[in-house]
Amino acid sequence: PEKLWSKFVSVATKAKKLGQDDPRRIVHSLKVGLAITLVSLFYYFEPLYDGLGVSAMWAVLTVVVVFEFSVGATLGRGVNRGLATLLAGALGFGAHRLASFSGNICEPILLGLFVFLLAAVVTYIRFFPRMKARYDYGLLIFILTFCLISVSGYRDDEVLDMAQKRLSTILIGGATALFVCVFLCPVWAGDDLHNLAAINMEKLGSFLEGFGNEYFKTPSQGQSMEDKEILQGYRSVLNSKTTEESLANFAKWEPRHGRFRYRHPWQQYLRIGSLTRQCAYRIEALNGYLSSELKASQEIRSKIEDPCTKMSKDCSCALKELAQAVKTMTKPSTANCHIANSKIAAKSLKSMLKTGLWQDTDLLEIVPAATVASLLIDIVSSTEEIAESV
Amino acid sequence: PEKLWSKFVSVATKAKKLGQDDPRRIVHSLKVGLAITLVSLFYYFEPLYDGLGVSAMWAVLTVVVVFEFSVGATLGRGVNRGLATLLAGALGFGAHRLASFSGNICEPILLGLFVFLLAAVVTYIRFFPRMKARYDYGLLIFILTFCLISVSGYRDDEVLDMAQKRLSTILIGGATALFVCVFLCPVWAGDDLHNLAAINMEKLGSFLEGFGNEYFKTPSQGQSMEDKEILQGYRSVLNSKTTEESLANFAKWEPRHGRFRYRHPWQQYLRIGSLTRQCAYRIEALNGYLSSELKASQEIRSKIEDPCTKMSKDCSCALKELAQAVKTMTKPSTANCHIANSKIAAKSLKSMLKTGLWQDTDLLEIVPAATVASLLIDIVSSTEEIAESV
Repeated sequence: PEKLWSKFVSVATKAKKLGQDDPRRIVHSLKVGLAITLVSLFYYFEPLYDGLGVSAMWAVLTVVVVFEFSVGATLGRGVNRGLATLLAGALGFGAHRLASFSGNICEPILLGLFVFLLAAVVTYIRFFPRMKARYDYGLLIFILTFCLISVSGYRDDEVLDMAQKRLSTILIGGATALFVCVFLCPVWAGDDLHNLAAINMEKLGSFLEGFGNEYFKTPSQGQSMEDKEILQGYRSVLNSKTTEESLANFAKWEPRHGRFRYRHPWQQYLRIGSLTRQCAYRIEALNGYLSSELKASQEIRSKIEDPCTKMSKDCSCALKELAQAVKTMTKPSTANCHIANSKIAAKSLKSMLKTGLWQDTDLLEIVPAATVASLLIDIVSSTEEIAESV
Repeated sequence: PEKLWSKFVSVATKAKKLGQDDPRRIVHSLKVGLAITLVSLFYYFEPLYDGLGVSAMWAVLTVVVVFEFSVGATLGRGVNRGLATLLAGALGFGAHRLASFSGNICEPILLGLFVFLLAAVVTYIRFFPRMKARYDYGLLIFILTFCLISVSGYRDDEVLDMAQKRLSTILIGGATALFVCVFLCPVWAGDDLHNLAAINMEKLGSFLEGFGNEYFKTPSQGQSMEDKEILQGYRSVLNSKTTEESLANFAKWEPRHGRFRYRHPWQQYLRIGSLTRQCAYRIEALNGYLSSELKASQEIRSKIEDPCTKMSKDCSCALKELAQAVKTMTKPSTANCHIANSKIAAKSLKSMLKTGLWQDTDLLEIVPAATVASLLIDIVSSTEEIAESV
């Protein structure tokens, strides 16, 4: 029992941390509970219950399945589900009619063939990358509804009635889910995507800010845990692609909200994101030189310290400025200036290397930092171009 | 109509390409069609149909929803669905009983409260990363079943009967899906993960193989499209994390098959994968130096050509050897030897740089290739350690 208790405590602390990291999670849970309860009670007090019959449960099912974390995802699922049910219902009814004309023996064969063909073809369509991204769920529901209509049609001629009932309950369920999702503390995927783009840039900026001090510090200076955490922050950027893509997909479903129009250029965010990642890859390479065994000696480092710290500082300022600009959707004011500064620093470093200052030293450890930093400048300037177009 | 036709043709060619890229997709589509048709026909010829009633459609629903591309995913969903239905059914029945004791007025309030609490708590649990990875679908079904049992219980006392029927149909549907999935050309997520690890390493190897030629070629030599494609192959490795993780999750559900035991060390693949990605990040940085404006002059490059090509060739051989070793699950025989060779080359390059050969040249463009290559050696050796443990 004591072990159980400690396990319970650890789970509870984890749950608490999860909530603190993003309080919207708690709100979301409560919203789901509310929506489901609403639908359940609706059917409890609904005098038409007997009219809708078992189909009533489709409303509950719809709420449970459709309700997602962000508005875009919920809307996308809802629209997918509604349209797919409608289309598949019509098609299923047609197939059922067609088969019933053909006599008692042919009917099951024909229906089986229809079901087989449709299921196979639609499943194949689900492999198309573009379909998968936006309509995967709809295609699934399409197969499902078509098959259900056909199967239930075997014994029962109330197909039309059933299809209509199902559609109406799905509408009720979907509407409830959407209503709760949109009007109670909505979570917009577009906002998330927007913030993610800014945060990722900022993380890279923080890394570069810390990098200068970290690389050129003397061994006697210790490293605080906090610094280390900042330096590791960029790592999450490396694998941000999937998150960004799904957020952009959800965002496309969202109507106008806040500062975003309906057809906000979400694709732009993906482009910014991929440039940010490119920059992060370079930083990952740069990060490798922080480990002490690959560092150049104190003496050599001190020679290049000045331009290098300047470069990383300026790049960091530019990135942070850009992040801020993306966040507030304004034009970056001084970013260009920072970039120009870092370019000057890079040039001075280059000319420094050209002079014969280095004849007797091991070159391997000095130059990479400089080269990567100069690459960074290219990246920053291209990021800037895009940020300006927002 | 002509436009429509050209659109149709383009879709058709895309569909064909999709099938050629991975013929298993076509097989999968046919399998889904078969499974659904089987279940539909089963209910058509089933004399017990009237006994199972509307629940029969749950079997079709289960097949449609559970059937996934790989065996692991299908098994995972099936088990999730079965267990969740069982648990939630029992709990829902209990809640229903408890509420019905409390009198007519309290009943809906109490039930509403139960539904709200359970939905909110379980939705919150879905945010736990570990739960999300393996039991997300089960938790969804858990909410669903619990609510359905409660809602239907309002008017109908046949809850127990209904729960039992639902479970049996789900079992039938799940069994059909699993049977078709496992015994007709099964697709194992474990195999895919295994191959992915090997292919990714091989891609990096191909890049390094081509890199030497590409970097040190004279401007007069043209570049064939094929070469370019090989050099871009590594890009897909950069974003392979999500795919690998989901495959590993699926693989954990799979029983013994082929050369894999039930508890194959799938975690190991993730570790190999992350090292491979690390290596890919470095290669991404290296790739930046291929563009002509960043290349050093012909003369300088020719000086370091010998050790550099040696290093990249040896690294490439080692990586390919390791990939082969992972694929065939044998110990790599000559990989160590290649790694040792490339280390020797790196050393000779280092000493070459130490001598004052470079006094009057621009250093910026020479060294990165060498440094990144020496980093690569570290990566390769660590990859090797892990490959040996397979």
